[in-house]
Amino acid sequence: MKVRAAVAYQAGQPLVIEMVDLEGPKAGEVLVEIKATGVCHTDEFTRSGADPEGLFPAIFGHEGAGVVVEVGAGVTSLKPGDHVIPLYTPECRECKTCLSQKSNLCTAIRNTQGQGLMPDGTSRFSINGRKIHHYMGCSTFANFTVMPAIALAKIRSDAPFEKVCYIGCGVTTGIGAVINTAKVEPGANVVVFGLGGIGLNVIQGARIAGANMIIGVDINPRRVELARRFGMTHFVNPKDMAEADLVPHLVELTGGGADYSFECVGNTKLMRQALECCHRGWGVSVVVGVAGAGQEIATRPFQLVTGRVWKGTAFGGARGRTDIPKIVDWYMEGKIEIDPLITHVMPLEDINRAIELMHSGESIRSVVVF
Amino acid sequence: MKVRAAVAYQAGQPLVIEMVDLEGPKAGEVLVEIKATGVCHTDEFTRSGADPEGLFPAIFGHEGAGVVVEVGAGVTSLKPGDHVIPLYTPECRECKTCLSQKSNLCTAIRNTQGQGLMPDGTSRFSINGRKIHHYMGCSTFANFTVMPAIALAKIRSDAPFEKVCYIGCGVTTGIGAVINTAKVEPGANVVVFGLGGIGLNVIQGARIAGANMIIGVDINPRRVELARRFGMTHFVNPKDMAEADLVPHLVELTGGGADYSFECVGNTKLMRQALECCHRGWGVSVVVGVAGAGQEIATRPFQLVTGRVWKGTAFGGARGRTDIPKIVDWYMEGKIEIDPLITHVMPLEDINRAIELMHSGESIRSVVVF
Repeated sequence: MKVRAAVAYQAGQPLVIEMVDLEGPKAGEVLVEIKATGVCHTDEFTRSGADPEGLFPAIFGHEGAGVVVEVGAGVTSLKPGDHVIPLYTPECRECKTCLSQKSNLCTAIRNTQGQGLMPDGTSRFSINGRKIHHYMGCSTFANFTVMPAIALAKIRSDAPFEKVCYIGCGVTTGIGAVINTAKVEPGANVVVFGLGGIGLNVIQGARIAGANMIIGVDINPRRVELARRFGMTHFVNPKDMAEADLVPHLVELTGGGADYSFECVGNTKLMRQALECCHRGWGVSVVVGVAGAGQEIATRPFQLVTGRVWKGTAFGGARGRTDIPKIVDWYMEGKIEIDPLITHVMPLEDINRAIELMHSGESIRSVVVF
Repeated sequence: MKVRAAVAYQAGQPLVIEMVDLEGPKAGEVLVEIKATGVCHTDEFTRSGADPEGLFPAIFGHEGAGVVVEVGAGVTSLKPGDHVIPLYTPECRECKTCLSQKSNLCTAIRNTQGQGLMPDGTSRFSINGRKIHHYMGCSTFANFTVMPAIALAKIRSDAPFEKVCYIGCGVTTGIGAVINTAKVEPGANVVVFGLGGIGLNVIQGARIAGANMIIGVDINPRRVELARRFGMTHFVNPKDMAEADLVPHLVELTGGGADYSFECVGNTKLMRQALECCHRGWGVSVVVGVAGAGQEIATRPFQLVTGRVWKGTAFGGARGRTDIPKIVDWYMEGKIEIDPLITHVMPLEDINRAIELMHSGESIRSVVVF
């Protein structure tokens, strides 16, 4: 079938809206009509050429929501008409990692996904006979896509696509980092580095978890009002002090250090500060942001020996098929907010503008609707 | 009173056996007759001048065992005749950290201990009217010492001093790192970097915890036989392969990576390898060794984002007054071994030889008996 997609032909070039060919679902696969998709920094990381593992041509997009159109042979978990959110981290429930119950990083289709291919080692997308790569196993910058059934979370049918698509990445990453990875408990003091989309979702996750102080740290105060609405209790602007004073200031403000801290920017210097502002003896720092290729984090081992813990999270530690439907419920029940985070909605034709809005800092999340 | 002690007058110089003056215990303090003391790398770290916080003159030693001689005003937890192990990490059971139940790093007397003083800000040791610093709150290189009551673990009276003194640091650090900090569970695969005293105790801790594979890593095979006796199931000599091949080899040997790894050397490069040989998704690496002043650990944040956890341990996460008596029981019941680790026993007069034996690698632990 012919589908409408934003194609990335070359690193650093604008996306091109094209009609491309999409093959139907093979065994274990599902054809999904994408109704809405967020445009995430990770898409732009690859488009820009900064991602050393980026493959071209490709159809980006990994934060979508849509409806099942057709299922391939052997698919029993889904049927046409089901509403779904694509999962760039699948949940096969059969691999060593899924069965460990210690991690969400399912390995069932990891190798082919990394090669921009479906599990059988081929692509469903092409244009004029030329293969186009899938992206993060999703490729939601197209009005139809094909995905493995294990990489689709079935959600309730009354949830608005143009809002819950954000649960496919940003919302879940932020909230999950708090709930699944850090396991913040009521009364804890939390420090959040970066008040972008992820940071704001960490903040609302911390609020849900019953945190006491929720301290936001950002050099740009423009999101302060929204962050307070989401649960932030204190704001610290590093520009208001010498660089070396930030960590001591946060330690003082929290009466000894953060019980939990989250780095939501992708800056390795902030990752170090986030660790070092943690409380001696038990503070846990979670890396949520994605650093540039080859960058490293560092600290003195004394920070660990005296009880701080350094960990990270991917997709908020969420098991997609199990946890995503719950987070959709939370949104529908008003337990979490998404609407104020979606600052721009646009048709696919304007997708390059979404990237501009991201770079200018004007958007929190832009969503493309089909 | 006059006591016999090994005095460190100056960094880098041999210890000098002297008769020094010791004041009796003040309120909350206890006079202890030290019967035996281990000579630990940490004592030597400070003696050598490598410790930037080292104070001189001082009486080193922090791995002792002895008998209570006299208690100061208000001490109710101990009485003359009680057998005790000095604690360089006290357990006041009243500070924020003790009450948190999340850490053993009691802060009750931290400031004065770091200054080489008793909690009232003075020293009990002097020679010809000149103040001598306490060391790590213990100063066990003397046949009598004064300590705060919160820094003494009461132990059973049938335990041999010249063996259980080692529980005051090395044994507890190694076993505790496994049991308290990593919380190794039955069936886990464990990698231990360094087969010195700490590494061997980590190995027996892992055996007690029911670990499946226990892989020892060392460039020197001389402890292999003893390590196997303690529970090591596999030995890897990094010299048998290119440096870059070690981590992949350990990942392969463990079928995907270590569930838990322990760095027991104090080498920041090994700390990185220990983290990176951990299993994607859940592997936990514990820094046990103490790195040189100013040294840093580094890795790509991707290691954390994909589920590895970096933590550390001090005194094995043990609450001294609560946990030390239990470990003494384990030794007396044959659950753990200490005797083969104590390779040399000597009088105080020979203490400088203990340091030589440490540097030559000939000793695992030398113990001074009074």
